[in-house]
This record gives sequence, structure tokens and C-alpha cells, in this order.
Amino acid sequence: MDTERGPALNRAAVAEILTRARESQRSTLTVTEAVAICRAYDLPLPDDGAAKDAASAAAAAARIGYPVALKVISADISHKSDAGGVKLNLKNDTDVRQAFGDIAASAKAYAPGAAFDGVLVQAMSAGGREVIVGASTDPTFGKVIAFGLGGIHAEVLRDVTFGLAPVSPERAREMFSEIRGYPILAGTRGDEPVDFEALAGVVSRVSQLVTDFPEIAEVDLNPVFATPSGAVAVDARIVVGAVANERPRPDTASIVATMQRTMHPKSVAVIGASAEEGKIGYSVVRNLLDGGYGGKIYPVNPRLAEIQGLPAFKSVEDIPGDIDVAVFAIPAAFVAGAIEQCGRKGVASAILIPSGFAEIGEKQLQDDMIAVARASNVRVMGPNIYGYYYTPEKLCATFCTPYTEQGSVALSSQSGGVGMAIVGFSRSHNMGVSAIVGLGNKSDIDEDDLLEFYAQDPNTKVIAMHVEDIKDGRAFVDAAKRVAKEKPVIVLKAGRTVQGARAAASHTGALAGVDQVYDAAFREAGVVRARTLEDLLDWSRALAMLPTPKGENVLIVTGAGGSGVLLSDACTDYGLKLMAVPPDLDAAFRELIPPFGASGNPIDITGGEPPETYKKAIRLALNDDRVHSLALGYWHTIITPPMVFARLVAEVVDEGRAAGNVKPIVASLVGDVEVEEACRFLEERGIPAYPYAAERPIAALAAAYQWARRSGKMAN
Amino acid sequence: MDTERGPALNRAAVAEILTRARESQRSTLTVTEAVAICRAYDLPLPDDGAAKDAASAAAAAARIGYPVALKVISADISHKSDAGGVKLNLKNDTDVRQAFGDIAASAKAYAPGAAFDGVLVQAMSAGGREVIVGASTDPTFGKVIAFGLGGIHAEVLRDVTFGLAPVSPERAREMFSEIRGYPILAGTRGDEPVDFEALAGVVSRVSQLVTDFPEIAEVDLNPVFATPSGAVAVDARIVVGAVANERPRPDTASIVATMQRTMHPKSVAVIGASAEEGKIGYSVVRNLLDGGYGGKIYPVNPRLAEIQGLPAFKSVEDIPGDIDVAVFAIPAAFVAGAIEQCGRKGVASAILIPSGFAEIGEKQLQDDMIAVARASNVRVMGPNIYGYYYTPEKLCATFCTPYTEQGSVALSSQSGGVGMAIVGFSRSHNMGVSAIVGLGNKSDIDEDDLLEFYAQDPNTKVIAMHVEDIKDGRAFVDAAKRVAKEKPVIVLKAGRTVQGARAAASHTGALAGVDQVYDAAFREAGVVRARTLEDLLDWSRALAMLPTPKGENVLIVTGAGGSGVLLSDACTDYGLKLMAVPPDLDAAFRELIPPFGASGNPIDITGGEPPETYKKAIRLALNDDRVHSLALGYWHTIITPPMVFARLVAEVVDEGRAAGNVKPIVASLVGDVEVEEACRFLEERGIPAYPYAAERPIAALAAAYQWARRSGKMAN
Repeated sequence: MDTERGPALNRAAVAEILTRARESQRSTLTVTEAVAICRAYDLPLPDDGAAKDAASAAAAAARIGYPVALKVISADISHKSDAGGVKLNLKNDTDVRQAFGDIAASAKAYAPGAAFDGVLVQAMSAGGREVIVGASTDPTFGKVIAFGLGGIHAEVLRDVTFGLAPVSPERAREMFSEIRGYPILAGTRGDEPVDFEALAGVVSRVSQLVTDFPEIAEVDLNPVFATPSGAVAVDARIVVGAVANERPRPDTASIVATMQRTMHPKSVAVIGASAEEGKIGYSVVRNLLDGGYGGKIYPVNPRLAEIQGLPAFKSVEDIPGDIDVAVFAIPAAFVAGAIEQCGRKGVASAILIPSGFAEIGEKQLQDDMIAVARASNVRVMGPNIYGYYYTPEKLCATFCTPYTEQGSVALSSQSGGVGMAIVGFSRSHNMGVSAIVGLGNKSDIDEDDLLEFYAQDPNTKVIAMHVEDIKDGRAFVDAAKRVAKEKPVIVLKAGRTVQGARAAASHTGALAGVDQVYDAAFREAGVVRARTLEDLLDWSRALAMLPTPKGENVLIVTGAGGSGVLLSDACTDYGLKLMAVPPDLDAAFRELIPPFGASGNPIDITGGEPPETYKKAIRLALNDDRVHSLALGYWHTIITPPMVFARLVAEVVDEGRAAGNVKPIVASLVGDVEVEEACRFLEERGIPAYPYAAERPIAALAAAYQWARRSGKMAN
Repeated sequence: MDTERGPALNRAAVAEILTRARESQRSTLTVTEAVAICRAYDLPLPDDGAAKDAASAAAAAARIGYPVALKVISADISHKSDAGGVKLNLKNDTDVRQAFGDIAASAKAYAPGAAFDGVLVQAMSAGGREVIVGASTDPTFGKVIAFGLGGIHAEVLRDVTFGLAPVSPERAREMFSEIRGYPILAGTRGDEPVDFEALAGVVSRVSQLVTDFPEIAEVDLNPVFATPSGAVAVDARIVVGAVANERPRPDTASIVATMQRTMHPKSVAVIGASAEEGKIGYSVVRNLLDGGYGGKIYPVNPRLAEIQGLPAFKSVEDIPGDIDVAVFAIPAAFVAGAIEQCGRKGVASAILIPSGFAEIGEKQLQDDMIAVARASNVRVMGPNIYGYYYTPEKLCATFCTPYTEQGSVALSSQSGGVGMAIVGFSRSHNMGVSAIVGLGNKSDIDEDDLLEFYAQDPNTKVIAMHVEDIKDGRAFVDAAKRVAKEKPVIVLKAGRTVQGARAAASHTGALAGVDQVYDAAFREAGVVRARTLEDLLDWSRALAMLPTPKGENVLIVTGAGGSGVLLSDACTDYGLKLMAVPPDLDAAFRELIPPFGASGNPIDITGGEPPETYKKAIRLALNDDRVHSLALGYWHTIITPPMVFARLVAEVVDEGRAAGNVKPIVASLVGDVEVEEACRFLEERGIPAYPYAAERPIAALAAAYQWARRSGKMAN
């Protein structure tokens, strides 16, 4: 964020207050300290004055002007209201003096030894629309900013949105529109809108404050009164003492170098290779061979001289020449020792299939293993994984089944079960993949390492990830932000709900934060969020086919009026905009379709039409630059059978592509079972097509839009 | 509703006021009339008094006690505030006199000729939580009641719910909990809850009022102040002049008799039968023959003596013997004439495949045709349809393709395209059906006719309907309510959204009402609402397999921890309750699973377990009466391959069934493509099973729950 544009911020004043608090080992700042920090960051507050006794409180009130509020000043009282430390709307000298006495007594009663440093006398705000601006420290993503309407809205109705700090004024404005109560801020029934610029400044500067001073754990401006001409924070609460989440991160160049060796290994060692069918160490060697991997395969087994036709070695260190990857198939207890040997051998990555680590409570064993790996300069994938696939190298470093259908989607999963679903779905749905990676316990290699590799991997066009937790939210956002500008990144965050998070906690010990913070992080990162496994798989498949939309105008061309209705419903559900068809284009469509068909949007060519009508209508839409995307509805008839439709679409689309008219097209085909063949035909030609379905094609198109909008590929 | 339980309602007083309004041709009632009607229905209002001049207004105010409100009394002013006809919070004699003058002047200025009959002086309410209770007249469902929080909540945030009148006090309480702002009524931060009984009484009596007096078009109690000790309506607005939507309905016995002849015809005539391939009249005869229909088939064609090997007749009247059904394949213009002949012949139903009626704007032609049909005592299906199937009779009265896989799901669609999707999906997904019916323009036979038939049809267990509009909402709710008590009814209402409704309007001219009113109607009818075509098809298939759950306790048993998390997320999304496993049962599970597996819910038996562990865990869950439903997560491993899992599940479930333990079970299978075969195997044994998916099994189970709850099959 370019803070130079904003007012000058007095960082030194804040630093001084925080130093004082640190030195006196306080986590709670007094109201005067909080006010001073706010002022230093140009956060507007009512006029005020501190007072140590009733008389000076009354004098301050007289200077400020009635009515006033009195608030206790105490380093030992965090929630002032709970301690009887706040008196509002005091209208005269007598009331102020009385209130001072009451607050002093309450403070004493609340916590006998509590410090009492007088009160802050504050002008009562003239009111306005009440909002809350807060900052907190999320265990995954660090500093996050919450915004919502005040009163019952945020606390009872949970109408709150989040942003990752720092929040630019532009992002703050987006946040305002994300809450349900936005119309209240924008003005209803003749009310003027609030001063969004002032409010965005408040949000942005609070986010700057916690970014500049990570030791600030929480800021709570509650309420802030927003009016058409400004925004004033009536109360400020600040808690300090946050501890930064330090995680050792290699630099990008070294990550990429290691991942390159991992994905394009010249040689793979299998530690614990076996000659006995049914053993993991057997399956790994078998899959490397059967998958067609072209590099060198070295089985390591102290007791055998040959395994599956390959010479075996007693130890990784006995292998002649360099080793890029070592796949582990030995019990957990022996892993650390073997990693040490790998380190001496210069192995880039240890692929830890073995379980028996943190996932069964053996956290110490895992921590010790990782300490050895770090000292040995070996990166670790897993433990507790199925392994990984990289199809451009025909590399199946896994105990599952070989998978070799090459394509452009790279998938990863934290769960082995989900990994197997990826393999099965990809095979069954002809989804070509570049990589399938198991991350399991994620003791080291993480989604952000994969992202760094995929960013520069010419074989990967779309990235799909199943995660149960993110170990380092900022590293993830940082990597995803860069990658998602060029390639769609789709993430399924499992454990979204309380029931799901509980299940995740007992599964991998992953502790989920507030799910809305993930929403904020994914938005910031430009990531497309899938809510279900079905969506993750289907969208990644579709996004590998779809070009990037150039604008928001979606046009539905349908032979089935009923499909047109369902496709329209789905467009609303998924936030797609049905284009308002300009009169000249509308007239052109009218010429093609029967008089009882419907122009507008959907274009309903009606069910009885021959192939030529479909063809002309689709051609017209493809050739018009104002149409940005097409959703086709096909109805199986004798006049235009499914494969005739599929072929004509392919023909028109090829024409369009040749003329440079490349647009996302999705299709819904309703009819008898022959539509399934037509769908396959269309998908082989880059058009996601769904039989008996009207929601899924639109959901897939919407995923393409979500990416295009978030990546900045499309001018909104 | 048993109004006898409530206070005595003074119907005569209301009737008198409405008669007076009708006689003076007024649609707006004055505030005094509205207040009198409210009092007659025991709707609490503040103390008041009418006054014709300033002095008597002041006297009334003195009697009532300050502060007071003044409201204009005028038959010509509906929205009093807009006309400057309301003055609030008047604190003394002077202010009341001044306000009277102001109101008189404003009323004159607002509408020069407007009647001015003085003002109503009303005690100011002491306040409370502000709610809105409204009644309106929906074109589809008649009298509906709206409830929401007042102020910005209902109007700006659209936090409103609906109920069909009459609304019982019990249903009113449900409505309260349906709004997002419910916590505000229930009490937050130490507030007492409002008096829900009093509020339910208000909602219920407003609904009784509009039910008793259908000519009341609108009632608007806004605001109503709800407090912990009562509820008072501060303002009442009543508009009269609603016209009842009268639609001729045969009685149930005659509907069933006709539908019986239609679905089990002894003879079918094809009017416009053809010998020429490609013609609709050819396909219909062909499909009747190829489908294997066992009754008599009579082609009707004035120019041919024989068609497809059958003797043809010049007219339906020339056919010897009785005809139950006549399928039409002639141009629209000739339909009415042929219906008249059918009437003379005693045909029960005319199946109107021909298009060219209302759907292309020829509404008059359709109205004229229906008039002939009514006069001829012939029921009409369509026009503009693909026809219908009834598999128990191997009856394919359609120009599409024969469909003969018998089963227990009856489906109907308003759109031909959706009908074809039903045929294709059913065939492709081995969904046995009893009937597939096209309703098209629904000029006569409607969903409620089908429901009456299915209710007593032993071949139908589940009913699934695609609708774009409902012609007679009350008849639908009435029929569905009775049927849904015994058989699940699933409805996809297309045109849910504004974009979708617009598309529906240009497609069939169907005008959609407020979508939330459909929600209310479906809830009232006990109908399961599907939001997408995919859900309609999938849920109807699943509900044909699933037994009715006996309670809310869902248990997840999974081999894949990752699936357990995703299944848990889906349970939350779909409103299913993960059972809190009792300690004894938990201990029993712990004995079966490895120490690092997870008990609780999900039960995670972990991925490396042999078939026996799955078997024991599922058996334990099946045999425990406290577990009501099971969601299984399977992970493809070498130790327990997919078909081994499928067979063990079938075995344990068979054991359970033999012992009387019948529970809904759904399954999510993740793994390589072999899981698809395992899913088919499970589905043939009544267990909806989904490969590579974790949301769909839960969505299907949730549909079973929705039905069980709404039908009253399950004690909540």
C-alpha cells in the first residue's frame, strides 16, 4: 500500500507507547494510550482530555462542551464497560463529578489492586451509522481486519467481513460492499451515503498500524460513527503482545531449484524397496517401472542384491552417481537416520510415504525428523502420503496405481483418500494431469513450494489443491498471488464448518481458524475457492479447457426453453451477468429464429429447429465482440440429433478460433443417452459439456470468471 | 386451524365494515376502520379515540395520556405518512392542537378533493422490538403472511419469511425462527425474549382474518412492538378488493377415475397416426408398439386403411369399442374439433402433443380448445408436450424414444427439454421409473391431478416434478400435503431467480411470484425442494432407495480421514446433525479401531484397515438404535479393494435388515476407477453410493431427512 498518499503517520509516538507497555509488561493499553496511538495514525476521535480528579474532569467537560462521556484510565482494565468504567451522555457539571466518583469506586470494586489513573473525558459523538473496525492476529494469516455494522449486526447477526492487513483503501471499499447491511451505509429511503472515503481511510490506517507494529495483537474501534461527512471512532481498545509466527522459508530460487530436481529427477532411490508383492516398497518400484519413468531407479535394501530386475544397494550412499529423489518405504523409526544418509549423498527431496508421525500423535518424532532434514539440507514431502506423480516425466513415485495420462492440471491433496479420488476421477473423466502430489502432514514441503514450481512449469496450466490447514498463510498468499495472475489456482479448504473443523482436528490435528478469514485470504491471493470435492475436480478440469473471458457479458443460446430458464437461474446463483443484448444484435437473432422463439437473453431458438439455426445463432454470438461468453442449451430432437449438434458446434467454434474469436463456451445437453457421447466429443474440443445438467456448466463458467476477475485478467 | 382455542373473533363487525367499504366502492379503509377490524380480531392496539376537531383531539389526548400520535382519517389516503397525515410523540395540549391543524392542511394539499374525517388520537407505544406482520394476496397461492423485523431489516435487508394463511400459532413460531434476525427476538446480551406466544397470536389472527374475508387484499401491521410481555400493533393499514382466483376443479374421485383410465388404458387411439417415418404421428404408433403396450392401439387417419400393420380409422368415432386415451398428432387448428369427437366417444383424456397454442402466443386458440374439452368432458394433457410414459403398462405414448425400465419414481416436467433429460438420465443411471409425464402448457391436467393419481398408485414410491409455474397453488398444496405424508414429493421450481423468472416468462409466459412464497408453500405441503435439475434427478433416484430415517442422529464411518472432514462439512451445509456418540458406544468403537484412529463422529477407522474392521464398525452402527443414519466413507486400498468393501457392506446391511435394523445409508467412495463398479453394486442393493464425491451422498441423505421431517414421519 502506498502510504505516502495518506496523511503522515507518527510511528515514533506509537513505538514509544508500545515500548513503555512492554517495559511494564502490560498487554492492555489504557484508553489514553489507545487514543494517543489512534491519533498518531490519524484515526479520528472525539475531542477529549484526561482528568485525575472530579474537579479537573468537570473542567475538561466544560472546555469540551456537554454532553460528555467518562472512561476509566487503567492499565489493568481491558473491558472498561464490564468494570463499570464508562459513563455516557453526561449533561452537566454535577453529573460529571458524580460519574467520576462512581467510576473510581467501580474500578476499585472490580479489581482491588487495579491501577486507577483517572478518567478520559470525551465529547459525545453526534451519532451516525454505527460500524465496527477491528484488527486481530490470526494463527494462520497473521494480521486481519474485520469490518461490520455495529450494534446487533456484527455481534448477533454475524454480518462481518475480513481483509488481510494491510488493506488498501480500494480493498476497504470492497469490504464495505461485502456485508449484507451495505445498503444501510449506501443510504436507504433518501438517506445520504456515508463518507466511504473517510471510512476506507480508517480501515486502511488501522491495518497499517498493525502491519507496522506486529506486537499489537488486537485493535477494536467499536463503535465508529460513520456520517455523510466523516467517520469518528468513539471507543478504541488496543491489546499488545502478539508473537510473530516465524517459519524458516528457503528463498524462491532455492525452492524452485529443489522442486525442479524433485519433479524432473534424473535418478530415484527407493529406500525400503521390496521384492515381495503387497509391500509398499514393492509397489513403488513396480509403479516407477510400469509408469515408464525414463531416469535411473535404484532400489535400496540391505538384504537383497536385486529387486524386480534392478540391482539393489545396501544404502543410498552406496549408489554410484547423483540421486535427486529418495522415496521412503521404511518404518517411521528409521526415517531420520536414512534422511541423514540422503543429506550426505546430496539428495534433493525425501518422499516420506511412511505414516506413524504427527497424525498418530508422534509429534516429537516428526519434529526430530525435520530437524535432521533441515540440518542435512534435504526437503521433505509428507510424511503419511501416497507419494506423487509428474506425468511429463512419466514419474509415478507412489504405492498406488500408475497414472500417465498427460495433461495440464496439477493437483495436490493433504489427505490420501482425496488423492485417490483425484486419480480415479482424472482417469474416469479424461482429465489430463501434469502432477498429483500428496502432502499429508506437510512437515516441510507445502502448497507454497508447489506453487513456486508450477508458476514456472510449462506443463502446468491449472492448479487445484485440497487443504485441511495452511501452515503459513502469508507464504501461501504471497506465492498464490504471483502464480494466480497467470494460472488459475483452485483451492478446496476442508473443515469449513464447525462440524468439519472438528473432524479435521481429530484427523490431522489441523486447527482451523475462522473460515471467513480463509475467504479473505483466497480473495487476496486471487484463488478460486471450491466448496466441495466435486467442484474442485470439475472446475479444474473445466478451467484447463476454457479460455479467459474478456468481459462480463454471458449469452445463453438454447434450443430448450426449459434449459434456458434453468441456466438463467444458475447464472444468478453463481454471480454471472446475463448480457443485455443490444438492439442491433437482438434484431439479428430475431431474423434467425422462429417468431415464437425468444430473443433477449436467453436466445431461445426453440426445439424444432434444424442444425442450421443452431449454427447461425452460435456463429452470430461468437463473431460479436460484445458477447464475452456463451452458455449453450441443447435439446435432443430428431431434427438435430446429439452428434449433429456436437459437430456443428465444433465446426462453428473452429471457424471462430481461426478468426481470433476465442471465448469461453460451456454446454448443457438434455436428451436421451446419446447426449453423453456428444458431451465427450465437445470436451475433446475444449468445450465443457454436461449431460442432464444445467447448474454444473454454469458453475464451471463461473469459476473461470472468478479467476479472471481476481487475477486481474479481465477489466471489471 | 382450531380457532376455538383462541379468543372470540367478532366476524360480524368486520363484515359490516367491509360491506360499507364495498358499497362506497373504496379499496382503502380508513385508520379507524382498520383499527376496528383489528380489535374485532383481538389484535392489540394502543388506546385511542377519534376526533373531528382540534379541541376534541386535545380532549382525547388528555383522556389517553401523553405522549400521543395523531393519524389522519380519510378513505382517500392509503399511505398516511406520505400525505403528512401522521404526527408522533405529541407531548401536550398545544402540540396536539397544532398537529391537528397541520394534518388537516396536509390532507387537503395532498389530494384536493380528499375526504377528511378528522384524526385518530393514539397512545404512543412504550416501544419494544419492532416487527412487521403483513398479509397479501399472491396470484398463485392466495393469502400469504409475511413476517420480519421492522425498520431496515425487512425493507432493506429483506430478512422476511412467509407462511400460507391460515398460519397456526405453531407455524408462526417456526416463522419467527426462520428469519436471520431471530436472535434479536430471542434475546441477546441478557435481553429477555419477546412474548412469542402473544406474537404468534397476532400472526395467526391476521392470517385468520384474511382467510375469513378473502376480499381483504392486504393487511399491514407495521410496526408491531414486541416486548417480553406482549405485542402491540402501532399502525394498521388494510386494503380490500382482492378477487378470488376461481378455477374449475373436478372432485378427487373423478380426477382419480380419469387418471386411472389415462395411466391404465385398455385402448389408445392415435389421432393423426402416420405411416411416414419422421412424422410425430408415426413415432407415437411406433413407440406404443415397440414399448410393448398390451392394450389396443387404434391409428386414426382419414386417408389410410392401415398404419404400421394396424387397421386405421377415419375418425375416433369410427373405432369399435371404448377408447380411454387419444394421443393427438395433428395441427393445432384441428385439435378442438377432434376433442369434440373424443367427447362423443367417451374418451377420458386427450394427450396434446401439438404445439401452436399459448406458448407461441395463441392463447385464444388454447382457451377455445379448453372450453370445448370441458364441455365434452375430456381431460387434456398439454398441449405442447412430448407425451407420457407409464411403465407398469409398458405405455410409451410419446414421439420420443421408448422407455421401459420399470421402477418406482414418477417424474413430470413442464418443459420438453427437461423431459428428455429425465429419460436420458433415468436410462443412464439405472433409475427405474413408473411414469414420465409432459405437462407443457398445462391447459388442464396439472401437477395436482398427477399427485392424486400417484397417491393411490402402488407402482409409485417417489414423485419428482419440474415446474415453471403452478396454475393453482392451493390445489397443489392441498394435494401435495396429502400425498407427501406417504410418499416423498420433490419439486424443482425453475425461474427461482429474477434472471430465471424473466427467462421463464418469455418461455412459457409463466409469471413467477415471490420465490420465498414458493418456499413457504413447499414447506406447508411437505414437499422437498430441489434447486437444480441435477438435484431433482439425483434425489429422486436416491429417495427410491432410502428408507425413512427414524431420528436425527447421523453417524459417519470412514476409512479416509479426509473424506470424514468433507462429509462433516456437507452435513453442516445440508442441515444434518452429527450424532454425539454416547460413551458406551464410543468405547465399543474404540475397541475396533486402531489407537490412532478417531472415535467420536466421524468414526475414522483409518486407511490401512482390513475388511473386517469396516464390517465390525458398520455392524455396530447398524445394530445400535441410537444411530439413525449412516454415511460411509471408503478409501480404496490394497487391503480392502472396492468390490471387497461393497460386498462386505451389502452383507452387513443384509444382516441388519434381517434383524429389522433398516436405516438410511449413503456412501462416498474415493479411489481409482474400480470404485465406480463398487458404487453400482451398492446402489443395486439400495445404498446410494457416489464415486469421487463427498457432497452428493450427504445432499441425498438430507433430502430424505427433509421429507421425513416435513411429512411428520419422524418425530423431530
